Amino acid sequence: MAWRHFDIDADQLLGRIEALGEVGRDDTGALFRGVYDQSWLAARDQLEQWMNELGLQTRIDAVGNLFGRVDGTDDGAPVILTGSHIDTVRNGGKYDGALGVHAAMSAVGAIAAAGAAPRRSIEVVALCEEEGSRFTSPLWGTQAMLGLIEPDVPASLVDVDGVSMTDAMRAVGLDPLRIPEARRADLGAFVELHIEQGGILEHEQVAAGVVTAITGQRHLVVTVLGKQNHAGSTPMDMRADALRGAAQMIVDIERIARERGRPAVATVGRLNLTPGSRNVIPGEVQFTVDIRFPDPDGLASLQREIESAARAAAADRGLDVKIDDVIQSAQTPVEMNSEIQELITAAAAELQVSSIPIVSGAGHDSQLFAQHVPTAMIFTPSRDGISHSPKEYTPIEQIVPPVRVLASVLWELATAESLPASPR
Amino acid sequence: MAWRHFDIDADQLLGRIEALGEVGRDDTGALFRGVYDQSWLAARDQLEQWMNELGLQTRIDAVGNLFGRVDGTDDGAPVILTGSHIDTVRNGGKYDGALGVHAAMSAVGAIAAAGAAPRRSIEVVALCEEEGSRFTSPLWGTQAMLGLIEPDVPASLVDVDGVSMTDAMRAVGLDPLRIPEARRADLGAFVELHIEQGGILEHEQVAAGVVTAITGQRHLVVTVLGKQNHAGSTPMDMRADALRGAAQMIVDIERIARERGRPAVATVGRLNLTPGSRNVIPGEVQFTVDIRFPDPDGLASLQREIESAARAAAADRGLDVKIDDVIQSAQTPVEMNSEIQELITAAAAELQVSSIPIVSGAGHDSQLFAQHVPTAMIFTPSRDGISHSPKEYTPIEQIVPPVRVLASVLWELATAESLPASPR
Repeated sequence: MAWRHFDIDADQLLGRIEALGEVGRDDTGALFRGVYDQSWLAARDQLEQWMNELGLQTRIDAVGNLFGRVDGTDDGAPVILTGSHIDTVRNGGKYDGALGVHAAMSAVGAIAAAGAAPRRSIEVVALCEEEGSRFTSPLWGTQAMLGLIEPDVPASLVDVDGVSMTDAMRAVGLDPLRIPEARRADLGAFVELHIEQGGILEHEQVAAGVVTAITGQRHLVVTVLGKQNHAGSTPMDMRADALRGAAQMIVDIERIARERGRPAVATVGRLNLTPGSRNVIPGEVQFTVDIRFPDPDGLASLQREIESAARAAAADRGLDVKIDDVIQSAQTPVEMNSEIQELITAAAAELQVSSIPIVSGAGHDSQLFAQHVPTAMIFTPSRDGISHSPKEYTPIEQIVPPVRVLASVLWELATAESLPASPR
Repeated sequence: MAWRHFDIDADQLLGRIEALGEVGRDDTGALFRGVYDQSWLAARDQLEQWMNELGLQTRIDAVGNLFGRVDGTDDGAPVILTGSHIDTVRNGGKYDGALGVHAAMSAVGAIAAAGAAPRRSIEVVALCEEEGSRFTSPLWGTQAMLGLIEPDVPASLVDVDGVSMTDAMRAVGLDPLRIPEARRADLGAFVELHIEQGGILEHEQVAAGVVTAITGQRHLVVTVLGKQNHAGSTPMDMRADALRGAAQMIVDIERIARERGRPAVATVGRLNLTPGSRNVIPGEVQFTVDIRFPDPDGLASLQREIESAARAAAADRGLDVKIDDVIQSAQTPVEMNSEIQELITAAAAELQVSSIPIVSGAGHDSQLFAQHVPTAMIFTPSRDGISHSPKEYTPIEQIVPPVRVLASVLWELATAESLPASPR
């Protein structure tokens, strides 16, 4: 395979990251772009202008996704898609999502600038909404492209100000009835670049992560029931302290996940206790457990081990425990397309960009695309592993090499004899 | 010593417990009598009426304490005082405090009914406020009797509705400027009967507890600082999870107190974490530790051991920890008068009422009286060890025997050759 190299304009890329990072920032420095709000609209307008400047043909679909296209010579061939999302979490950063759009523009802009037309068309996409931070509608833009939004959904979603998704769409000139028109049946591959949102690449001093899978998730709510009692007059040997039991469970959960080794993780992120007085033994504690593993069997066995440890800790101390498995928010692990993973690894080697395979512990648009279209992801390092924060940061020197890999991979996908088979 | 026996009218006692338990109960069944509020006033009026019916001479002092007196033959002799408080915690029960007033009325009523005048006068007291639930003014009635209230205090205390202690007192016909008049220099002994608020007597099937000491308390606020991070993309081996550290500390604290053995207790009753999202590793956890032991040296060493365990748990996991010792609410252990303890034990044996020495893990008016006047406490069992709850309960059969002991002890104190020496 003869890899084509493309030059990436680092100054232009950095300038755009900084400029877009100001769109949606308030007086306190907090950044938020919610789908269909004014900041989001301003960001999309800015991106459309940049795409036009790069010579891409722009188009906005029925749900509000923005596309910038380089036409291929073969009109009927499947399209190679790249990009990420432009919405952010509340008090978010300028890299999560946006960097994938910037990278796609730079890579496809470099291909366009090189003047050679690929066989297959390449499109940059700025997906309208991934986080679900304004409406509880994560992966909204991707859902529309894959025809997964039921007609009654937009009217059922309401933001914190009481505005429905229907009205929010109409306010930016979109007709919710036309969402089905956003569906794409012509996609041949999707490649998304994203910050790692973790500290592995930085710690290992590796330039790029080749994502093997997006991890599966299970979410438990554990309720520990003991006996509320006076903290002064109840001897230690006569207590049924719900917090003492919960503390043992938290210690055990961490140990179990750590002993499994990477990429298994389990996190207790929320904990409430009753009654919550200094001088009263807690009678009830409720906490969440977020369990992630990129293989369904491994995920299930990790969950089983955590649940039995919790039950054992409760039984040992005369406590009752109730474990709710929050099925609605569970996520099945999704593997990335192995052929595109190999392409990314090979391109990185060719371009002397160090890379390692990595599991994505966070969810992404790619987890949905991957179920319909050959899909892969490239991770850049994240400083201190921070994301969903104004402190998100990746220096430009750590961004350009993975973007060069992305450009070469896109060119290869757009010109190869054949494409990987679709998963369905 | 020839012990005098008195008959206690169980039906009358039970009737009064039930009747007073309705005063301050709202539609939801919750009981609350806050000092100087309407329920409190109604309760005091009711008690005054019962005291008059028993033939006691009633009097209300400058802070609102109610007294019922049987005159002794020796006018200048120190007074033997018995009773407890009539205020309750919010959503409290009908035994904590009130039972000590009922017991005192029944015992002194029985003495009065027996017709024999003691040498020393005996007084029943319904202390106006112990819990500090309306104003943060615990042991208020006792403080006034011991001359411990500074003149500027009533104006500085404000309840949740913004009413000052000054205005609250005036509303029930009391003049805050006259609080110093409540001071008593004529007390020879104080004996308080109270529910145990713990489960030791019930568990050991013993009828009465002879309190040896009121435990000392130290209150810590422990802040654990880790690193807030993404729960999906941060490997277990790269975390600084503040909750995991706090959980280890909670496990250690419980173990340390348990290994010390009774009556050592340590309780984590309140815990807050930041940011408190299912999918974010907690960056900060703050929790309280309530440590109690009835001996100053033992209390200090227990606190030291807990603090070093917390520091070690933090250091082991790369966490920072800050420990604040809340000195304002610390309490020094207070021993009960040993001669009166011996009297109670002997009277119980004489009356065939089983008794054991016991440490009070909760605070009481007696802890303040004991620093100025020879003081002792008698505990009755508490069903399931419950207090500060509408579920407080002690069956009448478990109340009468300790009240018989109280009556005999009061008679002995009121007629003995000499009284125990005052602590100051």
